[in-house]
Amino acid sequence: MNAIEELKEYFAEIMRLHYIQVTLGWDQEVNMQNYKSLEGRSKQVSLIEKLIHKRVTSEKVGKLIKEAEELADLNEIESAMLREITREYNLATKLPEKLVTEIAETSILAAKDWREARAKSDFSIFQNILEKSVELQKEKARRLKTHPDMYSTLIDLYEPGATYNWIANVFNPIKPKLIDFVKKLNYSSNKPDDSILRKYYDPDKQFELSFEIIKKLNYDLGYGRQDRSTHPFTSSLASMDTRITTRTSENYPNECIFGTIHECGHALYEMGIKKELHDTILCNGTSMGIHESQSRMWENFVGRSKEFWMYWYPTFQKYFPENLKNYPMQEFYRAVNTVQPSFIRVNADEVTYGLHIILRFELEKELIDGKIQVKELPQLWNSKFEDLLGIIPPNDTQGVLQDIHWSMGSIGYFPTYFLGNLYGAQIYQNVLKKIPQLPEDYRKGEFSNLLNYLRENVHQHGSVYRASDLIKRITGEELNPNYFMDYLEKKYYPIYNL
Amino acid sequence: MNAIEELKEYFAEIMRLHYIQVTLGWDQEVNMQNYKSLEGRSKQVSLIEKLIHKRVTSEKVGKLIKEAEELADLNEIESAMLREITREYNLATKLPEKLVTEIAETSILAAKDWREARAKSDFSIFQNILEKSVELQKEKARRLKTHPDMYSTLIDLYEPGATYNWIANVFNPIKPKLIDFVKKLNYSSNKPDDSILRKYYDPDKQFELSFEIIKKLNYDLGYGRQDRSTHPFTSSLASMDTRITTRTSENYPNECIFGTIHECGHALYEMGIKKELHDTILCNGTSMGIHESQSRMWENFVGRSKEFWMYWYPTFQKYFPENLKNYPMQEFYRAVNTVQPSFIRVNADEVTYGLHIILRFELEKELIDGKIQVKELPQLWNSKFEDLLGIIPPNDTQGVLQDIHWSMGSIGYFPTYFLGNLYGAQIYQNVLKKIPQLPEDYRKGEFSNLLNYLRENVHQHGSVYRASDLIKRITGEELNPNYFMDYLEKKYYPIYNL
Repeated sequence: MNAIEELKEYFAEIMRLHYIQVTLGWDQEVNMQNYKSLEGRSKQVSLIEKLIHKRVTSEKVGKLIKEAEELADLNEIESAMLREITREYNLATKLPEKLVTEIAETSILAAKDWREARAKSDFSIFQNILEKSVELQKEKARRLKTHPDMYSTLIDLYEPGATYNWIANVFNPIKPKLIDFVKKLNYSSNKPDDSILRKYYDPDKQFELSFEIIKKLNYDLGYGRQDRSTHPFTSSLASMDTRITTRTSENYPNECIFGTIHECGHALYEMGIKKELHDTILCNGTSMGIHESQSRMWENFVGRSKEFWMYWYPTFQKYFPENLKNYPMQEFYRAVNTVQPSFIRVNADEVTYGLHIILRFELEKELIDGKIQVKELPQLWNSKFEDLLGIIPPNDTQGVLQDIHWSMGSIGYFPTYFLGNLYGAQIYQNVLKKIPQLPEDYRKGEFSNLLNYLRENVHQHGSVYRASDLIKRITGEELNPNYFMDYLEKKYYPIYNL
Repeated sequence: MNAIEELKEYFAEIMRLHYIQVTLGWDQEVNMQNYKSLEGRSKQVSLIEKLIHKRVTSEKVGKLIKEAEELADLNEIESAMLREITREYNLATKLPEKLVTEIAETSILAAKDWREARAKSDFSIFQNILEKSVELQKEKARRLKTHPDMYSTLIDLYEPGATYNWIANVFNPIKPKLIDFVKKLNYSSNKPDDSILRKYYDPDKQFELSFEIIKKLNYDLGYGRQDRSTHPFTSSLASMDTRITTRTSENYPNECIFGTIHECGHALYEMGIKKELHDTILCNGTSMGIHESQSRMWENFVGRSKEFWMYWYPTFQKYFPENLKNYPMQEFYRAVNTVQPSFIRVNADEVTYGLHIILRFELEKELIDGKIQVKELPQLWNSKFEDLLGIIPPNDTQGVLQDIHWSMGSIGYFPTYFLGNLYGAQIYQNVLKKIPQLPEDYRKGEFSNLLNYLRENVHQHGSVYRASDLIKRITGEELNPNYFMDYLEKKYYPIYNL
């Protein structure tokens, strides 16, 4: 065996430990919601974490990386493997154990304070620990130094290769266009009415229906399952075991239906990775942005299209005749595409969503650069929110305290959500050019042509190609946010009768 | 730290790995029933097994055991800990890693084949892998050699200290008595009529009701949960996380109700182990037989008593008025105590149950001794079944394929089930002498006096005392199967009007 083969074998065991850790986490989220103590589970998780860290940072890995770098004839997959292993090794060895422990401990305390602050809508409860958490992230960025500026280094953890400048160059031109577009839609004198979505929909029936949908979308229940959890998520517990969760809200079926389609999109990505990559470090989506491109594509470009509803609406009517029996499909389609500035990111429509992200992206940059202070966040959040969305959160629970990310030390994660929409739009426009009958497919309840294209061009490759290479391979050009604006205009002018 | 303290700390990590393994197994049984591939999970389980094996067999353990044996002032718990650690060490060092891995991997594949064979009632699907599994168990017994004969060595894995001869000496005298007793009951001209139990009972309502029961029995849902699985079982996923499963049959509520009480009895044992023993090697029931004594006690001595039903019957009537509204409690009590030779062990009444076990005990002995072959099992099963119970299974699903145990390589496990009845009867007769008002408690829906007695005398000790010591500590005498026969006669003559 040469060095790269040795590394591959060595990391197969690490991947298994990683999958075990995911399994413990999945079980905790899905099955332990009423538990009085998580002590036992938390000790198990730390143990696995310790075992992984020990293996990744072993001298053997450093030595094999050096040897592998000397090998002349690495193929594409082996090169990518070496790239990702080196990345993991650097991440694990550049951070002193003390810092890692401190970050872990702080994030537990921060999650606690965040929860309390959020419940009481009192940012001051969260402020101290968030200050500490931000300082720790800066320290982390200083040590890792993947890029000259700290924020880019943090972004790189979630979107390998991306930098602040690159993202700013993508977001900045689209920002005024989005603000204008939202205003324009709001001037319409014939807006959709979403009151039909605010009625009672039996949660068990929603859950049942969500299974019908994912089965039709070719989510294979022989290699995964769907459960309920407080926050929907997707987890791969093995290379052939990708599970999703959803939640139901009895007066808002969108949470379950579109949440399910969203997670299903994530899952189809992981499920489509080719067998050759199973149990290797490449058996993952290549970046958070590309991952999100898949979930958003199914959720919005497919799941909120007219053709999707031409197929599904009769089924929905059968499930919920009390609400939908006499309600026209076209109006329901318009209702699920209502655009309305609102406070909570996770409930935002696909048009305003990007503005929620741009707000966080800009605040994070200034926070990490030390240009603004943690204590100024609530006020800055609100004024920025007004600039972008024209409304001001009535309290911090619906403002700066709404997301868990910062409490977990995840700074640099948010921009990947919007990148996902943009990547998704560009890929989807490209697919439509190659397979123009896709919308006709949806009308017939046929979703495998799109899936096959994505499997062939995105899914199978796992993390072999970085996001920027992948988008060029598929579409022949760099990430171009105009595709997203084009999509929005083409879709929403008719919906808003403009 | 002295040697025993070092061992304790060292084994805390091993216990955590063990709990992780249990979690992987629990998840597989509960959540992966429809999976097309268990490959990923199987590799994870083998990895954990390997890690445990490596730690248990490390030179450090051997060295510390020697040192600990020299320590003069070990207390009762430390002595027991050293005994169990030595046992584990011997078990693990005597088995080569290759054999351990092969057994783990085979058992996962065998479970898959068993499931298919059972579904199709086709033993031939299971035969090959079972042959392999039996050979691996024989190889294991040859290596371990805790006792001169292989079967005793396997039995000792589940019932430490017990041998084939010792058990045969307990079972043999009671075997003809049981056969006679079953016949006698069958001669009665006034037998219970269990047709009331063969009506339709909504499975979801059964499941819901089973939660009411376990809560009343003081099963704490903050430290465990109940799910459904093909085969009911109890698992401790941490020292404070003991989960149970049940199954529902729409035309036979006994499966869910008594199955739930049975598993709840197992869980109460594990949940009652004192904090001092958490995360130590003693944080387990001391033997399968004692474990079964707890589950059977709650299932039969409590759950099938008249006083239990005096309390619960009105609730049952509320859940299932269509069947029970006008049906008298006394007849229902008789119905759930119907004695009737039947095919499925887990559904057998408490009188015929022992005969199901004796059948397996005798077959296992001959199988391990090489006196019979795997391929002969279906035929031998059926003919022995006729000898003991007077009836012949109509197919292998209801015969030799009904139990998961052999697929898991668990040979030597079955006899502990019947030992459990016998231990249970002896302990329960003893409790009744000390707390004669127990049946009155049940009438009032009060089950904590029994639980407190069991916690004090059985549960809290975990594996500190071996089964044979425990029964002497509690009852002042060795295991005596006459208590069980006495119990049966006292209970069933009135029910059968004899």
